[in-house]
Amino acid sequence: MALNIVIMAAGKGTRMKSATPKVLHKLAGRPLLSHVLGSCEAFTADARIVITGHGADQVEATVAAPGISFVRQMPQLGTGHAIQQVVPALVGEGTTLILNGDVPLIETSTAKALIEACAGAALVLLTVDLFDPTGYGRIIRDPEDGGVLAIVEHKDASPEQRLIHEGYSGMMAAPTGALKRWVGALTNHNAQGEYYLTDIVAMAVAEGLPVLGIKAHSETEVLGVNDPVQLAQLERAFQAQQADRLMRAGLRLADPSRFDLRGSLTHGQDCEVDVNCVFEGHVELGDNVRIGAHCVIRNARIASGARIHEFTHIDGEKAGASVGEGALVGPFARLRPGAQLGAEVHIGNFVEVKNSTLAAGAKANHLAYLGDATVGERVNYGAGSITANYDGANKHRTEIGPDVHVGSNCVLIAPVTIGAGATIGGGSTITKPVGAGELAVARGKQVAISGWTRPAKKR
Amino acid sequence: MALNIVIMAAGKGTRMKSATPKVLHKLAGRPLLSHVLGSCEAFTADARIVITGHGADQVEATVAAPGISFVRQMPQLGTGHAIQQVVPALVGEGTTLILNGDVPLIETSTAKALIEACAGAALVLLTVDLFDPTGYGRIIRDPEDGGVLAIVEHKDASPEQRLIHEGYSGMMAAPTGALKRWVGALTNHNAQGEYYLTDIVAMAVAEGLPVLGIKAHSETEVLGVNDPVQLAQLERAFQAQQADRLMRAGLRLADPSRFDLRGSLTHGQDCEVDVNCVFEGHVELGDNVRIGAHCVIRNARIASGARIHEFTHIDGEKAGASVGEGALVGPFARLRPGAQLGAEVHIGNFVEVKNSTLAAGAKANHLAYLGDATVGERVNYGAGSITANYDGANKHRTEIGPDVHVGSNCVLIAPVTIGAGATIGGGSTITKPVGAGELAVARGKQVAISGWTRPAKKR
Amino acid sequence: MALNIVIMAAGKGTRMKSATPKVLHKLAGRPLLSHVLGSCEAFTADARIVITGHGADQVEATVAAPGISFVRQMPQLGTGHAIQQVVPALVGEGTTLILNGDVPLIETSTAKALIEACAGAALVLLTVDLFDPTGYGRIIRDPEDGGVLAIVEHKDASPEQRLIHEGYSGMMAAPTGALKRWVGALTNHNAQGEYYLTDIVAMAVAEGLPVLGIKAHSETEVLGVNDPVQLAQLERAFQAQQADRLMRAGLRLADPSRFDLRGSLTHGQDCEVDVNCVFEGHVELGDNVRIGAHCVIRNARIASGARIHEFTHIDGEKAGASVGEGALVGPFARLRPGAQLGAEVHIGNFVEVKNSTLAAGAKANHLAYLGDATVGERVNYGAGSITANYDGANKHRTEIGPDVHVGSNCVLIAPVTIGAGATIGGGSTITKPVGAGELAVARGKQVAISGWTRPAKKR
Repeated sequence: MALNIVIMAAGKGTRMKSATPKVLHKLAGRPLLSHVLGSCEAFTADARIVITGHGADQVEATVAAPGISFVRQMPQLGTGHAIQQVVPALVGEGTTLILNGDVPLIETSTAKALIEACAGAALVLLTVDLFDPTGYGRIIRDPEDGGVLAIVEHKDASPEQRLIHEGYSGMMAAPTGALKRWVGALTNHNAQGEYYLTDIVAMAVAEGLPVLGIKAHSETEVLGVNDPVQLAQLERAFQAQQADRLMRAGLRLADPSRFDLRGSLTHGQDCEVDVNCVFEGHVELGDNVRIGAHCVIRNARIASGARIHEFTHIDGEKAGASVGEGALVGPFARLRPGAQLGAEVHIGNFVEVKNSTLAAGAKANHLAYLGDATVGERVNYGAGSITANYDGANKHRTEIGPDVHVGSNCVLIAPVTIGAGATIGGGSTITKPVGAGELAVARGKQVAISGWTRPAKKR
Repeated sequence: MALNIVIMAAGKGTRMKSATPKVLHKLAGRPLLSHVLGSCEAFTADARIVITGHGADQVEATVAAPGISFVRQMPQLGTGHAIQQVVPALVGEGTTLILNGDVPLIETSTAKALIEACAGAALVLLTVDLFDPTGYGRIIRDPEDGGVLAIVEHKDASPEQRLIHEGYSGMMAAPTGALKRWVGALTNHNAQGEYYLTDIVAMAVAEGLPVLGIKAHSETEVLGVNDPVQLAQLERAFQAQQADRLMRAGLRLADPSRFDLRGSLTHGQDCEVDVNCVFEGHVELGDNVRIGAHCVIRNARIASGARIHEFTHIDGEKAGASVGEGALVGPFARLRPGAQLGAEVHIGNFVEVKNSTLAAGAKANHLAYLGDATVGERVNYGAGSITANYDGANKHRTEIGPDVHVGSNCVLIAPVTIGAGATIGGGSTITKPVGAGELAVARGKQVAISGWTRPAKKR
Repeated sequence: MALNIVIMAAGKGTRMKSATPKVLHKLAGRPLLSHVLGSCEAFTADARIVITGHGADQVEATVAAPGISFVRQMPQLGTGHAIQQVVPALVGEGTTLILNGDVPLIETSTAKALIEACAGAALVLLTVDLFDPTGYGRIIRDPEDGGVLAIVEHKDASPEQRLIHEGYSGMMAAPTGALKRWVGALTNHNAQGEYYLTDIVAMAVAEGLPVLGIKAHSETEVLGVNDPVQLAQLERAFQAQQADRLMRAGLRLADPSRFDLRGSLTHGQDCEVDVNCVFEGHVELGDNVRIGAHCVIRNARIASGARIHEFTHIDGEKAGASVGEGALVGPFARLRPGAQLGAEVHIGNFVEVKNSTLAAGAKANHLAYLGDATVGERVNYGAGSITANYDGANKHRTEIGPDVHVGSNCVLIAPVTIGAGATIGGGSTITKPVGAGELAVARGKQVAISGWTRPAKKR
């Protein structure tokens, strides 16, 4: 039986007070509309249609993908009008699922239940039990069979009807053929001059078609985003869901309400994440990884036993960044794209590593920069030392062999090679290759001037 | 009609366990008493009188301003006694508004409602609906006209009266003439030997004067601060209010419960603030500004399109700090007073900028210090390079022309000038001016020593 | 009267999905079992017996201490079976208190109340009023004297019994002699084939022994840890308790829900801690100490009037770290073990101090490393300067006399001594002693090369 998935995404979202179309605002780093598309991406559908309007070009460019088509609704004359536009694109006689592009936390299981209950033969409304139903259309059910008799708008509801806490969520599944017929018969004879999709309920009831109400798991699942307050509420609800799921899988979070994941996180056994960490993109943790408080980690792999100390910033961007088994990183360390740390590597405070490979046991513990470098095993890279990888026009590589000892405050002017086991004296600027085992020094002679008078404070 | 505003601020606040007078403890960076004064600063008042007592000198010095006068209450013998002291300072026959200096979240609209309801002719009590009224004086209202008949103290209340959830907040507005008369008639014939201002309610009722009760919007509005627990509760309530207001104006906060503003924040369209940011003093954001997680920003202007990465610390203090359009700052950057970054400037990790101007397109991306410097357009300031602006006695300036390339780990010993387009070789200590277009190098000759034996580990 | 304290700690904790035995998971940095042991460490007990099973070796090694003995329960056949194992170790005829090793927040006052109510003569159950009692055994009390008649398991409870919100916590105190007799009579004739300790309630009732129920103060007190979700819940509950206690003692916390203490914290008057600080080990604050946002502090003493700015990391580990009166530290500073800062010392951004003593008034304000150094009074240690304390094999000390001015980007190659009042020119690498009052410079001669052409960007 054919399945159409329709997502209404034409709204402006005035209260967002933003130049970005509402459905492109991000929840956990991903557009609202992408969350909705994701909720039903596992279904076999004959058509996935996004109804666009405000910012249509931008919306369509953002979520364009094989199998997704777009129908524009301009101007926007109500939910019924939106579905009228989509009628020509609907496939077959089966089921049409209608979701909202600004209701991002709709669950796959709920969407599936709507589709299954419809089965091309019933109108199925997604309803929700509301703590405070004020403003919602109330679901009037047949006391005998529980079928839905009507949706009564809040303003039209009797005092008894207002006591009903079951409201309509705005989402539904309908038999495709009937849906086409019904929306064709909608009128806009109302105060707003809009076409309301909910008017089809009366048509279905009049025809004797079953009208069912399926309840959402929670209010959160059907909450829409209309302003930054609601966006933040759903962000926290989504983060809480993710944290709960990860903890049940064994991840230990010091404070689930101070955890943010905007992407995907995989982890092995006995990993711990301290307070206020932010994960973005795709992050992989091995076993026994400990992440200290206040870390930001994007697109990175952290191998088993590694310890990421507080205030560490890892951002692998597209190239990725990796931390080897048992490595120690931070506090106050920054790993940038292409940082690849081997096993037991130590990266300490105020150290930046970019596009560099450090072999097992290498250490750069203090105030240093390693960019475009290849660092051998057990190298000790001194405090304050810098790879001068940029000559103002091009980037060059620095090659440091195994067991090299680079002293403090050195500059290695790339391209340059330091042979295995060499030693660079502290304060040296190295411009020429250093042979294996050599001691290289490049510094001025120390001169002592007695009787020198330090400048006096000017007034 | 004359208006007196009286704020009771004489209390000690023993439970604060602090050497600071209670009303000077800070909420969102500002003394509690200043919040109360601020709530009615928009009113045209004939007198603004703060009743001081404990720590009076310090309290008066802190909030002294034109139009504010002080009356001292020593010793403190109750709320009625406090108002007795202020009687000689009350102006005219209109209205006297009485607020508490330790109830910081009183809203302007509420204070205004009290004044308007009083109109010099009624006693108006600010009441509050309490979830748990235990300990509060209950408001007994006339069942017919809703007028207040009495305030019954919790300990004196009957079981039926204890079921009343409307309590007295401690704040009121009274006809000035009657108030003077009433407080003159107060006695201290009670267990504590204190003069209670609430006793005037019975006097007003006895005289047949209207006694009204106006309800506060929420408990939060009338909560007092008596210990650090309550101070923290009100801090969070105030922060939540501010966050809500900013979000409704379009600011996007990743987590409103992890947002602190201690001062004022203005913003353009489509600004985003990630988790755990703290703003102090006055901060201005243009359009499309993004502030990463864990930033601290004080007294700064961030122009449109700028991106402040995680772990950035900006503190302009009195001189201010500014970030130009499209500039990138951080992570782990620190801007200090007088840091002025032009458009598209990049300030990277472990870089400190103080009292320095960077022209458009200048970059200092790694482990560097720029102090008392003028940096031209498109300058590339190398990793680890330092402006030595302090000779141990005085500060001097460094002038770097446009298109200069400063290599890594250089020291520019101020006062010094680097001409346009010059290049400073990595590791150089520059003590003399460098001409435009010149290459300046100051480093030791690189010497290689073969067969050198590295020190052995001592046991 | 003899007292036995028995703690059940044999469970596996499958849902923790961890290689660590459940009772060794940490709450506020301390194993769950240690919290339970701590709750009754003040009692004079004749035996303190921990029943171990899963991970017994590890559990016993972790909490081993004088006066604690261990009994192994292998296999684990239920709570009654656990107590059967411990019978031979029980001392005397008095009272046996039975606690759970995975219920960490049990209060000392509650444990004491159980012991006192038992007095070797009554069976005393610790019960709890539950918001949602689903799944708990219900406490059936005699309507007349309030004595406990039975614990009815949820699955066996009648509809009326299910309305009871008082549940059994799993903890109790019992007369030792009777307990031995009762557990000897337990059978495992049930679906799980386990021995249930709760079956002794019926035995006590049958014997006419008083069976009492004492209620826990809160659900939190009796919550067990079965998965990381519950561990995080109890972590937050514990942190909230600690924050509340500290605030009532006068510590001012900007946000008690963003405060973590994993160890002990002492403080003087008027200390303030901003948001997101983490304290570990033992930390002491004097009077008027202010800790900025986002700090991590372990094993350190901060003297009165010191100011720890944002993003400061202090970790004294075993050696400790100390900050003198009125000192300023941070932002972005790191103090490591053995950092000892005197009065009025300033440690600024991107500065690391390890195993070094700084005398009063010394300053290291920018991008510097001080390791294994002794720094005299009023020393100014320049930006980017480094003590090269490690020669690749051994660590050496740097001695800097009072009033020394170390310029920027210097390297002091240890062992080396700088005499009082000496000046080190910026960019110098110092390998030889510098006499008092001398100016030492070690740098290359500045050479200017005109007409030099900077490399062009390669394509």
